[in-house]
Amino acid sequence: MPVPFRAVHQIARPTGLPTADLFAFVDGVLPALAEGEALVENAFLSVDPYMLGLMDDEEDGYPLHAPLEGRAVGRVVESRSAALPVGTAVIHREGWRTHAVVAPGQVRVLPELPGVPLSAHLSVLGGTGLSAYVGLTRIAGLKPGEDFFVSAAAGGVGTAAGQLARLLGARRVVGSAGSAAKTAFLTGELGFDAAFDYHAGPVAELLAEAAPTGIDVYLDNVGGEHLEAAIGAMRDYGRIAWCGAISQYGVATPAPAAPHNLFELVARSVRLEGFLVRHHLDAQQELYDLLAPQLRSGRVRAPETVLDGFDHIVEAFLGVLAGANTGKMLVRI
Amino acid sequence: MPVPFRAVHQIARPTGLPTADLFAFVDGVLPALAEGEALVENAFLSVDPYMLGLMDDEEDGYPLHAPLEGRAVGRVVESRSAALPVGTAVIHREGWRTHAVVAPGQVRVLPELPGVPLSAHLSVLGGTGLSAYVGLTRIAGLKPGEDFFVSAAAGGVGTAAGQLARLLGARRVVGSAGSAAKTAFLTGELGFDAAFDYHAGPVAELLAEAAPTGIDVYLDNVGGEHLEAAIGAMRDYGRIAWCGAISQYGVATPAPAAPHNLFELVARSVRLEGFLVRHHLDAQQELYDLLAPQLRSGRVRAPETVLDGFDHIVEAFLGVLAGANTGKMLVRI
Repeated sequence: MPVPFRAVHQIARPTGLPTADLFAFVDGVLPALAEGEALVENAFLSVDPYMLGLMDDEEDGYPLHAPLEGRAVGRVVESRSAALPVGTAVIHREGWRTHAVVAPGQVRVLPELPGVPLSAHLSVLGGTGLSAYVGLTRIAGLKPGEDFFVSAAAGGVGTAAGQLARLLGARRVVGSAGSAAKTAFLTGELGFDAAFDYHAGPVAELLAEAAPTGIDVYLDNVGGEHLEAAIGAMRDYGRIAWCGAISQYGVATPAPAAPHNLFELVARSVRLEGFLVRHHLDAQQELYDLLAPQLRSGRVRAPETVLDGFDHIVEAFLGVLAGANTGKMLVRI
Repeated sequence: MPVPFRAVHQIARPTGLPTADLFAFVDGVLPALAEGEALVENAFLSVDPYMLGLMDDEEDGYPLHAPLEGRAVGRVVESRSAALPVGTAVIHREGWRTHAVVAPGQVRVLPELPGVPLSAHLSVLGGTGLSAYVGLTRIAGLKPGEDFFVSAAAGGVGTAAGQLARLLGARRVVGSAGSAAKTAFLTGELGFDAAFDYHAGPVAELLAEAAPTGIDVYLDNVGGEHLEAAIGAMRDYGRIAWCGAISQYGVATPAPAAPHNLFELVARSVRLEGFLVRHHLDAQQELYDLLAPQLRSGRVRAPETVLDGFDHIVEAFLGVLAGANTGKMLVRI
């Protein structure tokens, strides 16, 4: 029986910040399953800032007139693959669409974690949580008793990073965010020791107030003024993990200005290290082991801003770029 | 019997690049040795670019009207200390002077390494060699088969780094220097695979020619355009060790411009790490063990530019700042 689906295509490259007219909704009918394939009905779709870098990249970015490649979780609803029986929960990158026909190599089967919602696999257990975890452990090597700062702290990576830093033994956890409501959420709901609205003044001054004795580890996913402020606040032997979320720049997102105080890395023996989470997918099981019990007990939360309905996906993406979300921005189908 | 000595004092702070009139030669007579002291006759004095940062630092830099604190090697010629018998070779930081009265805690006794000249303890076995060694091993973690680039390659750190990288198994060793004579020395005498004169064009282009397939490790001691070029040439998982030689900036040496391509650290998972060699003095014995046999056999060389006579020390210092040296700049007394 033919299954109708809806997808979103990118139909033009952005020349600045993206707008809704770069996207088109396309309806179609899925082909019948071939041997070895399965039909996945998507439950949640992820919209992420990194996608912007792929939107304006002619060479290595998204092809036009095809579904934007983004992460989704869903369940198998029809199957001709023994590896993907009906009911299996999977995560995949088949893009912005309601349904996808997949072979086993195109998906990762998700573990069933009782008491943990499927959407957490796109947030604190997914790429954003893994970015935070890898940045804190493999890249920065946060040690118990150290002081931690994260920018964009109310976002997907930031909310995961602040809570993970606490689990890993951080002494003081400080975050910056884009509104007073967000900073109140960080300190009131997520256990941050301090948070500031970066619009309230020079970031260096706000950080000096929030972390008056300096910081040991900074997880950066914005660069620019935040990176410069963090370098200025670093203690001897500090580490900065620079996250893949902003790894690709182009027309739509010019690279932020380089920090003027970069040479302080030498004077205080500081390490600045870039990383892409896709090189560290082998850490996924560690993250499950660490977080599943914490999520069940409620000690760690998976904050989400969820828009309901596939037709809101463009709105959700433009929203995450504008900082409209607290926690991970998701679309529920 | 009173011993006359000569010293150099800094008498004013620089307002730009330093000039000879900032220094004064001062003659005096050493006090008689107290119990536990020894008289050292200096044989070689080191002049180093990092000293410039201390010359213009009111707070943490050199006091005026005192001998500039620099490294020297010499031998004990008179002693009232059992720990420092006459004839002992020592290295110390008592500054720009012909003789020094020292207690055991003020000096480090040098091992007698047959076939290795005393001056090597100020170059490849001293702080410059140790900077290169620590940068290559502890900071950058150079692995056999990797490609290496060093700036200021004809200087003290650079000549040590290029040779050490080869010993540690580097595949291709590339250096930049300030003249055709220096680059010829690097490739002709020190075994560099390629070297370029950075005055000959944009550093990024010159580096791309010298290392057409990119580099894995860069030892930086200049920053600015070189750092930007190296970031552009870095392979995935590359490491940049940023050396303490330029750790202090001030009036005389403003910080170089930050690299515009810094965010490429993320895209290619590159690490940029500053360090100060004084935090790694425990690596000294490793360096002796590694290099002493190589120096004896001549497989590793300790290139030096030596000015003869204490009275040339200001000239030597101004010379090293202007790049007049090939290898370590020293003064022989």
